[in-house]
Amino acid sequence: MRILVHVSGGKPDPWLAELRTVLPEAELRVWQPGDDDPADYAVVWKPPAAMLGRRPGLKAVFNVGAGVDAILELGDAVPAELPVIRLDDAGMGMQMAEYVTHAVLRYFRRFDEFSMQENAANWRFLKPYEKRDFRVGILGLGVLGRRIAEALAHFDFPLNGWSRSQRNLAGIQCYAGPEGFTEFLRHSRVLVCVLPLTPETRGLLNRAALAHLPQGAFLINVARGDHVVEQDLLELVQNGHIAGATLDVFNEEPLPRAHPFWKEPRITVTPHCAALTLRGDSIRQIAGKIRALERGEPVAGLVDRTKGY
Amino acid sequence: MRILVHVSGGKPDPWLAELRTVLPEAELRVWQPGDDDPADYAVVWKPPAAMLGRRPGLKAVFNVGAGVDAILELGDAVPAELPVIRLDDAGMGMQMAEYVTHAVLRYFRRFDEFSMQENAANWRFLKPYEKRDFRVGILGLGVLGRRIAEALAHFDFPLNGWSRSQRNLAGIQCYAGPEGFTEFLRHSRVLVCVLPLTPETRGLLNRAALAHLPQGAFLINVARGDHVVEQDLLELVQNGHIAGATLDVFNEEPLPRAHPFWKEPRITVTPHCAALTLRGDSIRQIAGKIRALERGEPVAGLVDRTKGY
Repeated sequence: MRILVHVSGGKPDPWLAELRTVLPEAELRVWQPGDDDPADYAVVWKPPAAMLGRRPGLKAVFNVGAGVDAILELGDAVPAELPVIRLDDAGMGMQMAEYVTHAVLRYFRRFDEFSMQENAANWRFLKPYEKRDFRVGILGLGVLGRRIAEALAHFDFPLNGWSRSQRNLAGIQCYAGPEGFTEFLRHSRVLVCVLPLTPETRGLLNRAALAHLPQGAFLINVARGDHVVEQDLLELVQNGHIAGATLDVFNEEPLPRAHPFWKEPRITVTPHCAALTLRGDSIRQIAGKIRALERGEPVAGLVDRTKGY
Repeated sequence: MRILVHVSGGKPDPWLAELRTVLPEAELRVWQPGDDDPADYAVVWKPPAAMLGRRPGLKAVFNVGAGVDAILELGDAVPAELPVIRLDDAGMGMQMAEYVTHAVLRYFRRFDEFSMQENAANWRFLKPYEKRDFRVGILGLGVLGRRIAEALAHFDFPLNGWSRSQRNLAGIQCYAGPEGFTEFLRHSRVLVCVLPLTPETRGLLNRAALAHLPQGAFLINVARGDHVVEQDLLELVQNGHIAGATLDVFNEEPLPRAHPFWKEPRITVTPHCAALTLRGDSIRQIAGKIRALERGEPVAGLVDRTKGY
């Protein structure tokens, strides 16, 4: 079995070492420009278009991340019949739950305000919020969104969820599709975005959408920067409609030094660190799926190209 | 039934209103200096010594908080045979779990460091900690400590616990007594203090104890300020042995404006807000216990005066 590897922005060696451990029978090679030789599987992060063309023998592409937008944006350069398989969770759900729970508790318990008071040596009690006024709306109810919901449910936050097609999940008020979007927003004091980036979701969080959130709402984006129209968000934060935003992803990364988000105290910036791909967990998951495919069995995480995730 | 009420630092009227709702048959009165008249029960927060003396008919004292140190410090002014009953949880466990989980995630995910980078418009990845290096040690395994443990277990933090007498709790490495204290500290990267304040625990977190924590440890104190020797903590933070402390309680409250904790960036100060007594929940719990006592049944939360909690 021949496995072709390409990991943009990272060194291939640690990935090869993990693959060698769990699939000792495989022939591994790192993709180089001009390599059109046969391979059975590709393991990729942000691959170049030339890598996934009509390669002889290629049975499936494994993405070492949850979001497959960088593959699907290659369009016709990736044959329509080539299965693209994303990671199910591989430790990212827990990391997302940590990041989002921290941010929700920070807003709910007013820790940013206490911190500003602390800077002025000001000991002053602030009236707590009530949970019934702090409904958290999760955009995207896949593996990651549901894991985040589970963590927030542990703290008794009332929850909304929104997905492309209707879901019924215990403890979550579920909305679906364009027709449910406005109602979902109107009842979400905190909006958590964990959607896949597709042509339908790009720019979804624009002025019109964000204005439907209640006055004093909060935004947490751990999905992709391009879900948000950044100028619209900035204006809604500056006019006070949005009380705060915690953003891990941006239209351009690294976030340019001159970007106004850095200086806006109500916007918290982190450097795309909410959930890392855990190499060992990911490779073990991919190896298990390769073995299943070799036995002719179905695998989880197969991307639906018409939906885009 | 006659109930005598005294709530230091708060207005009595909302407490009387709640009591009237749940115990409509009771005669309620607010304690005034010189009132030595009979009463069946007292509902108190930080009562004066004169209130709890040998009052005719007094069957029990209910403390509207978890810590009864302010009552026990009255010493012989409170008859030894008078039952003192503390709140079991009444919503404080959840609030404590929120506060502590937020602080643990903040340290674990290095959000303070990301925040400092953000102030310099610096987009820089920081290597994450591993949970196996982030064992959380909980000092005090009563109702509140166990609720905190439950929240942290949801995020798979490895847990230590320490209590006066040995406990066996699923998922917690339990230590007990003076003989287990040093080992407990040596294996706790984060120390969470939720102990009752007693003569045995006052000043427990002094230089000798804190120095047993591993290099780069964190302290979270949501119990009483007098558990900590503040000058010792400050020195261990300044010399780097303790990487950060989140403190909700202090030797003197409000924390004096000139206190060095305000200016130390590695010490986070909040104004004793980690867990508020929720009036409605507390009074419903007290009413239930009064009814049980009237039927001759035992109640939870009876303070052991020899232990001090």
